[in-house]
Amino acid sequence: MNFDYSPKVQQMQARLLAFFDAHIYPNERRFFEEVEANRRAGNAWLPTRLIEELKPLARQAGLWNLFLPRSSRAPEGLSNLEYAPLCEIMGRVSWAAEVFNCSAPDTGNMETLERYGDEGHKTRWLEPLLRGEIRSAFLMTEPAVASSDATNIECRIERDGDAYLINGTKWWSSGAGDPRCAIYVLMGKSNPEAGRHEQQSMVLVPADTPGVSVKRPLNVFGYDDAPHGHMEVQLKNVRVPLGNILLGEGCGFEIAQGRLGPGRIHHCMRSIGAAERALELMCERAIARSAFGKTLAQQTVTQERIAEARCMIEQARLLTLKAAYMMDTVGNKVAKAEIAMIKIVAPNMALQVIDWAIQVYGAMGVCDDTPLAMMWAHQRTLRLADGPDEVHRNSLAKLELARHMQLPSSTVQMPITRGS
Amino acid sequence: MNFDYSPKVQQMQARLLAFFDAHIYPNERRFFEEVEANRRAGNAWLPTRLIEELKPLARQAGLWNLFLPRSSRAPEGLSNLEYAPLCEIMGRVSWAAEVFNCSAPDTGNMETLERYGDEGHKTRWLEPLLRGEIRSAFLMTEPAVASSDATNIECRIERDGDAYLINGTKWWSSGAGDPRCAIYVLMGKSNPEAGRHEQQSMVLVPADTPGVSVKRPLNVFGYDDAPHGHMEVQLKNVRVPLGNILLGEGCGFEIAQGRLGPGRIHHCMRSIGAAERALELMCERAIARSAFGKTLAQQTVTQERIAEARCMIEQARLLTLKAAYMMDTVGNKVAKAEIAMIKIVAPNMALQVIDWAIQVYGAMGVCDDTPLAMMWAHQRTLRLADGPDEVHRNSLAKLELARHMQLPSSTVQMPITRGS
Amino acid sequence: MNFDYSPKVQQMQARLLAFFDAHIYPNERRFFEEVEANRRAGNAWLPTRLIEELKPLARQAGLWNLFLPRSSRAPEGLSNLEYAPLCEIMGRVSWAAEVFNCSAPDTGNMETLERYGDEGHKTRWLEPLLRGEIRSAFLMTEPAVASSDATNIECRIERDGDAYLINGTKWWSSGAGDPRCAIYVLMGKSNPEAGRHEQQSMVLVPADTPGVSVKRPLNVFGYDDAPHGHMEVQLKNVRVPLGNILLGEGCGFEIAQGRLGPGRIHHCMRSIGAAERALELMCERAIARSAFGKTLAQQTVTQERIAEARCMIEQARLLTLKAAYMMDTVGNKVAKAEIAMIKIVAPNMALQVIDWAIQVYGAMGVCDDTPLAMMWAHQRTLRLADGPDEVHRNSLAKLELARHMQLPSSTVQMPITRGS
Amino acid sequence: MNFDYSPKVQQMQARLLAFFDAHIYPNERRFFEEVEANRRAGNAWLPTRLIEELKPLARQAGLWNLFLPRSSRAPEGLSNLEYAPLCEIMGRVSWAAEVFNCSAPDTGNMETLERYGDEGHKTRWLEPLLRGEIRSAFLMTEPAVASSDATNIECRIERDGDAYLINGTKWWSSGAGDPRCAIYVLMGKSNPEAGRHEQQSMVLVPADTPGVSVKRPLNVFGYDDAPHGHMEVQLKNVRVPLGNILLGEGCGFEIAQGRLGPGRIHHCMRSIGAAERALELMCERAIARSAFGKTLAQQTVTQERIAEARCMIEQARLLTLKAAYMMDTVGNKVAKAEIAMIKIVAPNMALQVIDWAIQVYGAMGVCDDTPLAMMWAHQRTLRLADGPDEVHRNSLAKLELARHMQLPSSTVQMPITRGS
Repeated sequence: MNFDYSPKVQQMQARLLAFFDAHIYPNERRFFEEVEANRRAGNAWLPTRLIEELKPLARQAGLWNLFLPRSSRAPEGLSNLEYAPLCEIMGRVSWAAEVFNCSAPDTGNMETLERYGDEGHKTRWLEPLLRGEIRSAFLMTEPAVASSDATNIECRIERDGDAYLINGTKWWSSGAGDPRCAIYVLMGKSNPEAGRHEQQSMVLVPADTPGVSVKRPLNVFGYDDAPHGHMEVQLKNVRVPLGNILLGEGCGFEIAQGRLGPGRIHHCMRSIGAAERALELMCERAIARSAFGKTLAQQTVTQERIAEARCMIEQARLLTLKAAYMMDTVGNKVAKAEIAMIKIVAPNMALQVIDWAIQVYGAMGVCDDTPLAMMWAHQRTLRLADGPDEVHRNSLAKLELARHMQLPSSTVQMPITRGS
Repeated sequence: MNFDYSPKVQQMQARLLAFFDAHIYPNERRFFEEVEANRRAGNAWLPTRLIEELKPLARQAGLWNLFLPRSSRAPEGLSNLEYAPLCEIMGRVSWAAEVFNCSAPDTGNMETLERYGDEGHKTRWLEPLLRGEIRSAFLMTEPAVASSDATNIECRIERDGDAYLINGTKWWSSGAGDPRCAIYVLMGKSNPEAGRHEQQSMVLVPADTPGVSVKRPLNVFGYDDAPHGHMEVQLKNVRVPLGNILLGEGCGFEIAQGRLGPGRIHHCMRSIGAAERALELMCERAIARSAFGKTLAQQTVTQERIAEARCMIEQARLLTLKAAYMMDTVGNKVAKAEIAMIKIVAPNMALQVIDWAIQVYGAMGVCDDTPLAMMWAHQRTLRLADGPDEVHRNSLAKLELARHMQLPSSTVQMPITRGS
Repeated sequence: MNFDYSPKVQQMQARLLAFFDAHIYPNERRFFEEVEANRRAGNAWLPTRLIEELKPLARQAGLWNLFLPRSSRAPEGLSNLEYAPLCEIMGRVSWAAEVFNCSAPDTGNMETLERYGDEGHKTRWLEPLLRGEIRSAFLMTEPAVASSDATNIECRIERDGDAYLINGTKWWSSGAGDPRCAIYVLMGKSNPEAGRHEQQSMVLVPADTPGVSVKRPLNVFGYDDAPHGHMEVQLKNVRVPLGNILLGEGCGFEIAQGRLGPGRIHHCMRSIGAAERALELMCERAIARSAFGKTLAQQTVTQERIAEARCMIEQARLLTLKAAYMMDTVGNKVAKAEIAMIKIVAPNMALQVIDWAIQVYGAMGVCDDTPLAMMWAHQRTLRLADGPDEVHRNSLAKLELARHMQLPSSTVQMPITRGS
Repeated sequence: MNFDYSPKVQQMQARLLAFFDAHIYPNERRFFEEVEANRRAGNAWLPTRLIEELKPLARQAGLWNLFLPRSSRAPEGLSNLEYAPLCEIMGRVSWAAEVFNCSAPDTGNMETLERYGDEGHKTRWLEPLLRGEIRSAFLMTEPAVASSDATNIECRIERDGDAYLINGTKWWSSGAGDPRCAIYVLMGKSNPEAGRHEQQSMVLVPADTPGVSVKRPLNVFGYDDAPHGHMEVQLKNVRVPLGNILLGEGCGFEIAQGRLGPGRIHHCMRSIGAAERALELMCERAIARSAFGKTLAQQTVTQERIAEARCMIEQARLLTLKAAYMMDTVGNKVAKAEIAMIKIVAPNMALQVIDWAIQVYGAMGVCDDTPLAMMWAHQRTLRLADGPDEVHRNSLAKLELARHMQLPSSTVQMPITRGS
């Protein structure tokens, strides 16, 4: 047992933090100003010049595609345990991950293509994604049903001659607002008569396929998160070649389970980065702000919250690192309890820390003069994305109870929803 | 002791609920659609046709200016205890109160004018406000300081010949986004050398006075709350006649204290209405939504939250009604502990209930397909508006401790901030 | 609507508080010292001389059997709303209620006898109970099953000739440790084949009936609560005359439901009294105790808790008073949601307030140098007695959901357990 | 970074668990029955035969003095990181640690003697303690003052010829109830005029020194924890040789700081063991108990708590292990933030988990038919022992704030109180 980051990780942390100091923090507001200028000019759904400027710099600095696990395509790939502390840093600024080509749902889609795609899929979609030229979306969640229960999925994938015919409505398809978003990974039901977890398939749907229409962006507590966005997408008699299926018919659930682990750990590490940032902001404000003759930092009520925030962050980070370690050493399946734990713990922790920070900022905390309000709104979605807390808690409890019931824990299925 | 609403109140509740059924709920989305259409057309800061259509209907239904306490000007005025349950109903829909000319900060400003204005002020500003022809803003909070401590206020009001010269920056001036907003009630410092609570004055500043500039709207999470809005307002060498002062120089703190009670109780009742609505929505969804073979309503985890929500709402309502009763019977000063209590309890309670409701709606809960996300954002501001929770808790604790220290409780001053 | 106590109540509160000042507080430790002396002398299960001395004084002061509802037997009886604030005061000292012949489970048993007993029962048991000469126990809960679900009850009541034959094991029979405890009200199953709520009967079992054995006292945390005690009682071929049945065979559930309301409200009011006492103790200590150069009262973290405690107590009290009011005006059945609410709210609130008070006392708070530790232990039992929180929350949620499902709320049955 | 226990630790865990299965669990109740039998026979303050029987077995099994850090005296000593998971196991049964000579406050006292005692102290006191022949107490906390602030300490140590004259009253001297308790490590004030942290000294006081009197045992929520006990000890003109001082006059605070780290981590690991045990008991009961047609384990409200408990335990364990790792690698001083964190986190976590477990057991959970009630009472003291949560949170917050204020973190002093 050893709690030190490896020298390699420490060196990369230093490099990434230096990049943040040089290029991210100084431009933090510029991103939003550029989007607002685009919005006023009539179209907020344009990629920002800022991120396009920074991407080559990140690549040059050796900070590109860090999420990618070691493989023939990525001989320098990092383990989950190595990537986690870097991903955490990226979570400190809402738009930063894309600069390093490490933003959701592209990372999850790239991993899915790497693990389950054939060579044609990789050439056509994975390569440009890895180069940051196109973007992607994951079409899982549906408005009409509780999609964390995969058997509820209604979107149909039907074989029709040499094509799959797709009909359904998806929403919370994050990233589908970006005009560069070229490919959708879609989960649908190919065989309603099959076993509970063999009903679903996953197919690749090019965004420009006839019958696909992006209906509307969905707000998150007033934020439309342009130009990324969270879209409602309708698929009406959409046809894709049979070869666009991933792995095979009925493998949708298996793939979804496979992609969950890494995606969740990425979200969690970013949540921890957001919480660290919020705690920093909270301390700075508490030191600087006075009321009734004392700084807020001198009030024990502020001190209590700072201390609790520190305790919560440290614990969540250790749990996430342990989950990453287990994914690396014993695999995602064995690590499923730990993955469920961090999925529950990290956003709830971050929401509490951010809420305390907002309170220290007073009215300034709820507007966009600090990153806190937007951070909070984003973290709130993570208690629902990839399955609500409640579903994960139930799965985790069943694993725990199984130890006392002589039930095989492998019978407990983790919930799925939306791409990470 | 008697816990029944009076027959008069019950009859007015019925009338108001009927109005909601007939005119408010059916138009709930239309309001936002109209604002969005205005926004797309280039200006979200226009009064909506919807509300202008509904105002005469409310007047006709005898549901106009219900907030107004009994007086010569309002012989049919209601007590706080009578108004509270009506105000609660108005809180069920975010934009509804204006239909009845009962929306903040106009209500607080009208009461201030009624109690502290002279006849000229009343004719020029109170009358058109009572008729719903103009709107108003309250300029209290400042960006640079913790305004809950009135001694921190930096905006200067200086006597200069026959005018007051005003210089300062205010923000969170709610309602100042509306083009009909004609009059500001401004709190500033007229004498920095005076005693702690005699330094401040309140003056009336017409919105079109030279030197006044509305700098920008402030978002609440991602919402700009157009066309009402929360504005940053700059005052640069603004001159108003000496007669525009309320009550007299150095009376600002006294007036602020006077307007606090009713304003706070109105906010609290609306918070309770919002929480009731959220609980209704939560129950409906829980009954309708199934996952893993059961409705959410059948899950004991959902039942726990529904029960806790009911317990919390009932308790907060009773506390608010008791505060209203005390304001009516023993006055705002004696009721200050109870007013502080509801100020703390109501928004925290509402936030918890709404958060649970959001969780039951899943991803739908964080977007604008239900009123929940906007409700949450609004309630979150109420833990800061009129002074943050922490300041009110400290005041309340000092009142409690004073009983054990033989200190006169009148030495405990309640915090002020922003208009209610 | 009116939040003032009636003059009659105010006058009785004053009288009761004066009695506390004169006779209860000055003897608070003496009670425990007497029990300890008895324990050292070999038998802690003796009635205390202290309480026997005080009972005549209470009677003389017109503070006897206050719990008793108005009836021919008690023409001066109080309503629930009138009794509640007096019961609250009694809750300030753990052993005080018995002085006024108002302690559980005697009050619940006396009400049960009054409402469901025949003249013989009343002469033989109710009269001496009302005079405070004997005591009683309620034998409901069983060790082997979850007794909040009445269908689980295993204790058998079988008709055998001219007697009922009773076999079973009961526990948490509070008061059965007192040698004066002469009569048990026992709930058992008379007909396992009957409908869900017609299987149970209630019979009167004299404590000295052959076959009855008190097996052992049960500790509450480390307290045995001698001489009152919470006993495990075994009934082995116990025979009582057929006339000892209350109301009739199969009426057990109905009687249990009938006795729940008042009993619960009494517990809740005492919880509120305990919480008030804890808050007082907390304030006094916070003022007197210094660490790191400041009193604890000056720390905002202490102030936050004092304020929160005050908010919680006020809300719980109002809710309990409202439930009492409803029981008086519309009856226990219609008031069942409100009764469930206070059953959940009051002990949880009291536990939190007492825990905060303990923390302010430091190590002294967990020992018996203050009443706090024992108070806490007792309140903790109230989250389980008469049914655990979870069962009440489920019932309450079902009432709430029923409004949205067109289900008759009368189908929701409140849990039962143990006598109040 | 590596989250696996070393093979050495895993092997010792297995050995210790096997010892628990063979000797501890089967005797769990026997310990309490023996104490009760002693109590009934007139003296609960006798060492139990049970533990004396088990000690040689533990020694034989190589499970003796595991707490002892590697040194010349203990060449096989374990690091904190190695001991932590073993200590956790010992925490599963309240009386188990003594079997392995690893119980507080002896462990802390032995470490203190090892680090700060001279050869004479070691021969006379450390050796018999290491052999488990005598026991010891730590006399720090005082009834009259907040002892977490060391400057408050009132017990005087005055040089008087060739002796120190000691006068004062101490309490919560755990272990001083045991007749084998032969030596006290006492903290007192030797020089009230010295600097804040040079006023205190630590001296060794044999328990049989004239002037020492054990006044009374203090209950913890009704438990007297006999035969160990928590004592109030009076010292009246107690004289000990000058050589009995540890390290030197004015070194008391330094020694107290030195002994804090290990002692705290031991308590925390045992808290985690207690929480694990509680979760096991909770799962077993939830599976076995039915109400309203379902097992408690099937209720989602139970599942939520099981999942949350698992998340909380895992996080607290990782944090404690990290603190242990830092103590081993960078020293107690650098690890002070981590030590403060676990001191806050572990008992609060354990209390929550145990409380949930109690709730699942219903009324059985608050009596001594399960270990839960006693566990809870003990954990509750740990929020106060060695300084209350609030003091640790303040220290931790100051360390956090110092990073943003360019203050040296070494100016933040951790609180002291009572021996661990």
